[in-house]
Amino acid sequence: MSTFGFDLLSTDATTSARRARIRTSHGDVETPVFMPVGTRGTVKGVTTPQLVEIGAQIVLANAYHLYLRPGVDVVRDIGGLNAFMNWEGPTLTDSGGFQIFSLSKTLTHTDDGVRFQSIVDGSWHVWTPEENMRIQQDLGADIAMVLDVCPPYPAEETEVADAVRRSADWAARCKAAHDCEDQALFGIVQGGVHAHLRAESVERTVEIGFPGYGIGGYSVGEPHDLMLESLAPVCEALPTDAPRYLMGVGNPTTMLQAIGLGVDMFDCVLPTRTARTGTAFSSTGRMNLKNAQYARDPGPLDPQCACPTCASYSRAYLRHLLVMKEMLGAILLSVHNLYFLLDLTRRAREAVEAGKYEVFLRGWLDGPGAEDY
Amino acid sequence: MSTFGFDLLSTDATTSARRARIRTSHGDVETPVFMPVGTRGTVKGVTTPQLVEIGAQIVLANAYHLYLRPGVDVVRDIGGLNAFMNWEGPTLTDSGGFQIFSLSKTLTHTDDGVRFQSIVDGSWHVWTPEENMRIQQDLGADIAMVLDVCPPYPAEETEVADAVRRSADWAARCKAAHDCEDQALFGIVQGGVHAHLRAESVERTVEIGFPGYGIGGYSVGEPHDLMLESLAPVCEALPTDAPRYLMGVGNPTTMLQAIGLGVDMFDCVLPTRTARTGTAFSSTGRMNLKNAQYARDPGPLDPQCACPTCASYSRAYLRHLLVMKEMLGAILLSVHNLYFLLDLTRRAREAVEAGKYEVFLRGWLDGPGAEDY
Repeated sequence: MSTFGFDLLSTDATTSARRARIRTSHGDVETPVFMPVGTRGTVKGVTTPQLVEIGAQIVLANAYHLYLRPGVDVVRDIGGLNAFMNWEGPTLTDSGGFQIFSLSKTLTHTDDGVRFQSIVDGSWHVWTPEENMRIQQDLGADIAMVLDVCPPYPAEETEVADAVRRSADWAARCKAAHDCEDQALFGIVQGGVHAHLRAESVERTVEIGFPGYGIGGYSVGEPHDLMLESLAPVCEALPTDAPRYLMGVGNPTTMLQAIGLGVDMFDCVLPTRTARTGTAFSSTGRMNLKNAQYARDPGPLDPQCACPTCASYSRAYLRHLLVMKEMLGAILLSVHNLYFLLDLTRRAREAVEAGKYEVFLRGWLDGPGAEDY
Repeated sequence: MSTFGFDLLSTDATTSARRARIRTSHGDVETPVFMPVGTRGTVKGVTTPQLVEIGAQIVLANAYHLYLRPGVDVVRDIGGLNAFMNWEGPTLTDSGGFQIFSLSKTLTHTDDGVRFQSIVDGSWHVWTPEENMRIQQDLGADIAMVLDVCPPYPAEETEVADAVRRSADWAARCKAAHDCEDQALFGIVQGGVHAHLRAESVERTVEIGFPGYGIGGYSVGEPHDLMLESLAPVCEALPTDAPRYLMGVGNPTTMLQAIGLGVDMFDCVLPTRTARTGTAFSSTGRMNLKNAQYARDPGPLDPQCACPTCASYSRAYLRHLLVMKEMLGAILLSVHNLYFLLDLTRRAREAVEAGKYEVFLRGWLDGPGAEDY
């Protein structure tokens, strides 16, 4: 029997923000939640005890990357994703649909499935929705995602429409093929920035019926305003009794705006990727810690932050590490950036509970960090 | 008043191994001890809480590297090495003598000092023994080392003899210039693999008088046997009431042999450097974790090891991380390799306390790990 569940705890007084709880056999996830991304089964530069320390609730991995290396059978035989990564909490795997379409130089997709070339060694692979379900079930995450078709941005409207229809067909086949009771399978809504295609995608996906819904096809280069405009009706149209997961979005401002529209879950590589280049989120907007202005600065990265990095290290030290390309620089900044988003969503949860999300969001949008979207 | 002290607690029954305690204002150091190296003020890939977790007692940094970047004044103004690195325990800085001679492409040294080119930007710098003392006092470690002259191996005997005499002259000038009461200044014995030059160096350095003695000029490419042969009389000639520090040595077998000769302190970049290439110390000798034989191996790196890496991760996962060049691979192997040497010296201390060091050493030398020297 599936242990997956979703409890809607409260809804904000004046926005569509929700406070909810996702139940899995590896523990509960309090939403709204930001999920650190461990693409290849590791959140880059951060150990799992560090993830626990900074309050991560659920970790994401990618079926595409793990399928190519080390191979799904390796992960399965070690005991699945939790044992492989040494992470005891809930997990989610993306199907790899987005990665096939964004990373592969050459691919063909038909109604039956997609044929793509490995980014690792150029070998050819064929995925059908059924094969993808087998892969994600072997990985054994608490939440799996359907195999979808992700058009680039910009794309011809006909291409986006085809993606919506094929994604819906594949979603139905995924649901039919999925037979792991202890894993929840989420549908994915496509449709780009076209309101009527988003509406069609919601209708078709909800008709199939899933315990949760990903909202894909955003964060691919579309203008910020167009994204928010088309996201609002998607949230309104999705069922209230299932989690809504805005895929690939994790910049502070967009995340807070989307929470206000009723989104529950987020993931993004941004915090760790920008950390490796020396860029930190902060309460006053992004900072490039390699900047010479920090060379002798004894203060913490962000005086308003309670993360382990801000508690113990000076800007001068962080700059030194980053300029000298010392691993510890990327590690400490990754910890900070992840904490920043985890803490931001924690404060968002508190605001929704208090029925004051509008004030919280307005405070952020009026503050110096709002430029970061 | 100096807080530095050295207590000889016990001497082994049948070898020259010693069990002692070094006292500093940042805490005690139980010897024999392996000191993790944080050349630029960071033990590569490892956080200071992780160093505490695996039992590191004292951390080393290098005056040469910190002088070039970020600059000694930066470290001093942040509050010294402890505050800069976020490390509360004892620290030691090497003078940089070895680095000047091994890393600089062009340098000139006269009786007065050494003129060398920066490895970072090619700029020219002049260090006298007096200037080096100012630098190390500003860095503020518990233990500083005299500025010495390190000939390469092989070198003409006359060159080694010159290095011995100039090192002794500089040691005297360092002692005269050193006026930081809360920092202990160690002398350094040179002399290569020449017994009579080592004897001369010991005599001259001890005549000046220091609270501890480095033994330098080894681990520069000389044959293992020649090193041990010339090391034994050096240890015999050094005073028993001061710590002996074999500089730059940290492979398991040589370390255990040197402990048997009466050495108390060791440092080496080997554990973290080899970790970054995928090589691990183990109770059965070195392992290359990138090897295909580990691709599906569910067991721990070293079943006899109690480190955090061996407690929680499979060989298959470590191999996956290392092959994919994920940062976490280097991090987890660095933690393991450091723990391995820290634990080995901890067990050596127990053996000396029990008066059974000879049995302990013989056990290692007869075992499969002994190849690792």
